Amino acid sequence: MTPRSSCPINGTLELFGDRWSLLILRDMAFARKTTFKGFEASAEKIATNILSDRLARLEAGGFVHKDRDPEDGRARRYRLTRKGASLIPVLSEMALWGETHLRDADTIPGLKDTMKGDRQAAFSALIEQLDLADP
Amino acid sequence: MTPRSSCPINGTLELFGDRWSLLILRDMAFARKTTFKGFEASAEKIATNILSDRLARLEAGGFVHKDRDPEDGRARRYRLTRKGASLIPVLSEMALWGETHLRDADTIPGLKDTMKGDRQAAFSALIEQLDLADP
Repeated sequence: MTPRSSCPINGTLELFGDRWSLLILRDMAFARKTTFKGFEASAEKIATNILSDRLARLEAGGFVHKDRDPEDGRARRYRLTRKGASLIPVLSEMALWGETHLRDADTIPGLKDTMKGDRQAAFSALIEQLDLADP
Repeated sequence: MTPRSSCPINGTLELFGDRWSLLILRDMAFARKTTFKGFEASAEKIATNILSDRLARLEAGGFVHKDRDPEDGRARRYRLTRKGASLIPVLSEMALWGETHLRDADTIPGLKDTMKGDRQAAFSALIEQLDLADP
């Protein structure tokens, strides 16, 4: 895709288009979800066809890696790649903003404290805790 | 609006909906634009009706304050409020991600170095440099 401008903010927003792709990355990064059923069960009630499409795009973009689920050979397991995990700072700032400014939003345990200190170190620590497809 | 879930990431993504609202905040925060014409002239070529709609929503949400342009009494001036400026960390992480991962994206001078250090201090410094409507 060719973005409408060379602005890195616009490019990032265009790449992820609507919010669904970022919510799937959120499910992998914060809820540690790995299966289609798991993503489908998230509170936002993503439509099955949109979920399939966004997972395919995320896989094609190298953000997500798909393989067999070791616990269920017929099922597929989706895991973040390093590239996918590189969105964690963006997602974390969105989470912090939402916690702080949105009425009735959940708070992600420990997030505010984590973000008070060295954010880059906190993001790296968070990424290292993940079961990445390309550790 | 009632978001589809109480997740702070989803709430933030739903609140800003498509990318246009965040691009207008970007214009105010990073390009220091203050006028309708200025936003309209941005590289993404936002449609006039979308720009009017998003500016009205941002004003209604308390992210942007509108008043008379001191340099042109007939024109309107749009400035970020503290609430609007509170999106700078989200926008900055998107910019850093785009600079790092998108081919042909511009680099925002000094951003990478700024983000290497104490990000919270850097964001606060950036916000203090702005001509906010509610300083």
